Amino acid sequence: MPFHIVLVNPEIPANTGNIARTCAATGTHLHLVRPLGFDTDDKTLKRAGLDYWYAVNITYYDSFEEVRAAAGGDARFFFASTRVSKRYSDFSFRDGDYFVFGRETKGLPQELLDANEETGMRIPMTDKVRSLNLANSAAIVVFEALRQNDFPLE
Amino acid sequence: MPFHIVLVNPEIPANTGNIARTCAATGTHLHLVRPLGFDTDDKTLKRAGLDYWYAVNITYYDSFEEVRAAAGGDARFFFASTRVSKRYSDFSFRDGDYFVFGRETKGLPQELLDANEETGMRIPMTDKVRSLNLANSAAIVVFEALRQNDFPLE
Repeated sequence: MPFHIVLVNPEIPANTGNIARTCAATGTHLHLVRPLGFDTDDKTLKRAGLDYWYAVNITYYDSFEEVRAAAGGDARFFFASTRVSKRYSDFSFRDGDYFVFGRETKGLPQELLDANEETGMRIPMTDKVRSLNLANSAAIVVFEALRQNDFPLE
Repeated sequence: MPFHIVLVNPEIPANTGNIARTCAATGTHLHLVRPLGFDTDDKTLKRAGLDYWYAVNITYYDSFEEVRAAAGGDARFFFASTRVSKRYSDFSFRDGDYFVFGRETKGLPQELLDANEETGMRIPMTDKVRSLNLANSAAIVVFEALRQNDFPLE
């Protein structure tokens, strides 16, 4: 039971490529919710993730609700946003958890955050930036989850 | 007394740009050891980090030993590598610590790792990848240090 990263409507292929590399490095499953801001045959995506793409378990969906339905009722979802108050490190993650990230420019839809207030998670940062890079945010959260579980990938 | 990221001979401007963004987001100082694989006037670097570059404290050096001399004798340096055994999360970091990362293709020089065996740190990963993306590695380590110190940036 690995961890799961869900990208809802990612826009920049290099970010998804970097996240695929992190997924390969950690045995994390990658779930991509369309529309994507790029073709998955796109040369840039291949360049960003080619060496690692083969090693990643990737599933495509047409809506976030499809992800939730496929995950089953026991799955726990955590929603990354700069607009929520709890820190990502305040949660106790366990193997099988899903970490959901929105598009680079806008983040997750507000209604999705409102409907999942208890599991919204924020990465603390200064007011000098609007947000962290998407791939960095995903890496920070997945490695906190791995750390809490004593790095089950080894 | 912020944290410090040292990049020794980074090659890919987008990675340094992403790390600059992470530094801006966390009040971390960025130290760049030449030669760099790109011009710091390079359009790609500006594109990758332009919005954040102004918010980052960046210092340039011609060797790693210059960094150490400038940091002073009390500074603690931790060296990221896939070729060492201790995990990054096994260390207790404190404000003012320096995290050193090598070039994307080769990592840090072996003699630097050998001379600093006690503070070599590894990010655990599967054998499916050679390494994580450099910017992701830096973000993982800095956020572990921030987490251990209750996010002093807030």
